[in-house]
Amino acid sequence: MTHGQAQLIAEAERRLGPKAIITDQQDIEPWVTDWRGRVHGAASAMLAPASTEEVAEIVRLAAELRVPLVPQGGNTGMVAGATPPGDGSALLLSMRRMNRIRSVSAEDRRAVAEAGVVLETLHEAADDVGMRFPLTLGARGSCTIGGLTSTNAGGTQVLKFGTMRSLVAGVEAILPDGSIHDGLSGLKKDNRGYSLDQLLIGAEGTLGVITAVALRLVPAIGARTVAWVGLESPTRALELLRFLEARTDGIEGFELVPQDSLRLVLKHVPNTRPPLSGEHDWQVLVEATTPDADHDVAGELERLLGAALQQGIIEDAVLAANEAQAEAFWKIRDTISEAERAEGQTLAHDISVAVADMPAFLVSASGKVERAFPGVVASGFGHLGDGNIHFHVRAGAHAAPDWYEREGEAITRFVDDLVTAAGGSISAEHGIGQLKRAELARLAPPGRIHALRAIKQALDPLGIMNPGKLVP
Amino acid sequence: MTHGQAQLIAEAERRLGPKAIITDQQDIEPWVTDWRGRVHGAASAMLAPASTEEVAEIVRLAAELRVPLVPQGGNTGMVAGATPPGDGSALLLSMRRMNRIRSVSAEDRRAVAEAGVVLETLHEAADDVGMRFPLTLGARGSCTIGGLTSTNAGGTQVLKFGTMRSLVAGVEAILPDGSIHDGLSGLKKDNRGYSLDQLLIGAEGTLGVITAVALRLVPAIGARTVAWVGLESPTRALELLRFLEARTDGIEGFELVPQDSLRLVLKHVPNTRPPLSGEHDWQVLVEATTPDADHDVAGELERLLGAALQQGIIEDAVLAANEAQAEAFWKIRDTISEAERAEGQTLAHDISVAVADMPAFLVSASGKVERAFPGVVASGFGHLGDGNIHFHVRAGAHAAPDWYEREGEAITRFVDDLVTAAGGSISAEHGIGQLKRAELARLAPPGRIHALRAIKQALDPLGIMNPGKLVP
Repeated sequence: MTHGQAQLIAEAERRLGPKAIITDQQDIEPWVTDWRGRVHGAASAMLAPASTEEVAEIVRLAAELRVPLVPQGGNTGMVAGATPPGDGSALLLSMRRMNRIRSVSAEDRRAVAEAGVVLETLHEAADDVGMRFPLTLGARGSCTIGGLTSTNAGGTQVLKFGTMRSLVAGVEAILPDGSIHDGLSGLKKDNRGYSLDQLLIGAEGTLGVITAVALRLVPAIGARTVAWVGLESPTRALELLRFLEARTDGIEGFELVPQDSLRLVLKHVPNTRPPLSGEHDWQVLVEATTPDADHDVAGELERLLGAALQQGIIEDAVLAANEAQAEAFWKIRDTISEAERAEGQTLAHDISVAVADMPAFLVSASGKVERAFPGVVASGFGHLGDGNIHFHVRAGAHAAPDWYEREGEAITRFVDDLVTAAGGSISAEHGIGQLKRAELARLAPPGRIHALRAIKQALDPLGIMNPGKLVP
Repeated sequence: MTHGQAQLIAEAERRLGPKAIITDQQDIEPWVTDWRGRVHGAASAMLAPASTEEVAEIVRLAAELRVPLVPQGGNTGMVAGATPPGDGSALLLSMRRMNRIRSVSAEDRRAVAEAGVVLETLHEAADDVGMRFPLTLGARGSCTIGGLTSTNAGGTQVLKFGTMRSLVAGVEAILPDGSIHDGLSGLKKDNRGYSLDQLLIGAEGTLGVITAVALRLVPAIGARTVAWVGLESPTRALELLRFLEARTDGIEGFELVPQDSLRLVLKHVPNTRPPLSGEHDWQVLVEATTPDADHDVAGELERLLGAALQQGIIEDAVLAANEAQAEAFWKIRDTISEAERAEGQTLAHDISVAVADMPAFLVSASGKVERAFPGVVASGFGHLGDGNIHFHVRAGAHAAPDWYEREGEAITRFVDDLVTAAGGSISAEHGIGQLKRAELARLAPPGRIHALRAIKQALDPLGIMNPGKLVP
């Protein structure tokens, strides 16, 4: 522990009380390693403030004593963006005690949640007033509003409602100089200069600590229906999406699943069965919803899929007969990663290209990877309607205990080069954190890297906010 | 003309040709004064590049030679944000030759327009492919996409579609170091660090020059209906909005008009008549639209207004019988400022508070202003559903040639203090430019001013981008 850290801990304990300081290494242990166990950090203490003013106190002390802080929510990130450096040079700043929902209003279609509120808790609070917070993802039981905002999280409902950036109405944060940025005023129009709210969304805690967020709510789901569709190719899948979107605004989930992924799920995940009787090279899970309980959304989707079948866009389709079957369809989609891991080693790439370009990219990139590294298996699944595919490369014939070390970097660079050449993003929704920083440095235009560094240096000249993350 | 300016002009002429350089003062004259004639600037030349690469060339030269540039679109701003300094220290950078619509696609619901494209031209281009760009405002025949983006413009359709920030899918810009920021890739998901797109929206050209913008299109209007409603108070008006919004998602215009404003329009604007037979203290113009031509949006609105009448929310209402009458209703709304000017001197304030707070604020602020400056007349009209009111103070009994000079600043400070105390914004949609800079400096929290300055200094260390604007 550095002298500055010791001073900060003593002073924070004096001002905020013992509850706000955790120094027992057993209690800290679960939070200094990312949840996938790939990056191990160290921190001599975890600070756990319970209010905006307490966070501001800690940041002011950190600035004064030059002690870096690593803000953390649910520790569910994919790129080790909330994992402290391994040398113990930073303290963890856990936001989990800031877990109040300050307000939730159906009339204003708005909730204000503190950074440490768990996503599922917000879902329930919105539900209680007959509304809905539409963003959701696998980690909803542990990820937090602060982390979701700091990473501009996406998930499965982005098609209709956008990422966090579209759902955040305002941000409260402590800037690196300890000042409070209050963007929670609820103004729908405000043109008083650069949007600090927008700058903090997706900044991964490198420009300040988000303490609370105002969020847009949408009307609760009145009815929903889920269909499983078999078709020939990703091109046909996009054609289906366009066909549906031109005829209804109810489509909110559209997930592409290759036959290979379905096969692995059926093989490795208990209690799964194929939704369709025949085999199809590609499939799509379609979810349609409506806020109007009287609207026959299932009938509408059935009719539209029938028309798509007649026009030769799709090969087959089935609607979930009930809620249990709908859940069963989603389970197939949600367990693909798990099934792939059960099958063997897998390298995951969270990439995006323009929506219209994704079908061709997916087919061509899979082929190129498999030719460049003969024996591996490449495929993509996920959010076709967002142009965002989880592009996975399985070890296949290359499987070996040291496969990741031996080939991982080369394969990832190969994939990232293909994505960059296609004008795409090497991080569609997971962010940069620690794990993608070298690739960002390698592939981003120099002007962009310069701008990111200049903004970081301008707002955090002492480098105390989440050091070693995002900015190359 | 400074030596640097002369060098820049000579070099730009050599590289870009004579068409890109205007030095005839007669040609420059219309562009160095803001359109309302309140701020007079000077510039020895106006540069008019025709491509992104040409803008980049100019910015690189400007950086090298330390010559400040003032980017300008249609020169329709309300805060002199595109007017050069009076000392001739900057050159004008006109974007009007960059006026290509690079693409417009109904399938992608997207258009890419260069900065100099006039809003009305974009409206027509979207219309041609059966789509719609929903943002609109009075200056649509001359304002440009670059200016609208740089000022995060609003207008009358914000209620349903948001400001430019909601409609911009990506920005291409030249940063102050001459590098090209290309945000036009069309990625729906991209988490590679701070959003430069979002930073440039609303930055008023102080962080770079926007050269092109990708814009979201929405389905064309299938049917629309306009109603004029009489009611008792702004509180009732908001109640009506909530009532309607809970029952339909078709409401896209909701403009509040006080009786006093209606009276002035009827008095000063030819060919106007009162939409309702009786008098009402307040009125609202409601516009409802639907993309579905088969949907009876007029019948729906009529039924809902009937229910609101029965519940005592409103006093009377009439639907426009045809398109001509709909235009006549809008004409009343759109000529309020003109009618007020015809009546006498007026001070305009473009303010916002939280939507739910606006009715009470409007009534209380009007009373306070009239008590503090006995004889003046204060009232507000406009975008109630956005919490954004154009709060006007008429000279009334104070009318005198020197009224603006004598009382203008004191009244504006008084209004801005009331807005700030209510947690509102002193610039809801017009921006800061030159005219509101002193008030921003006076009223913004020190932490925010520090952050704005730090960002400006970081990205434009030489101070060549639109000097003297926005940043206090």
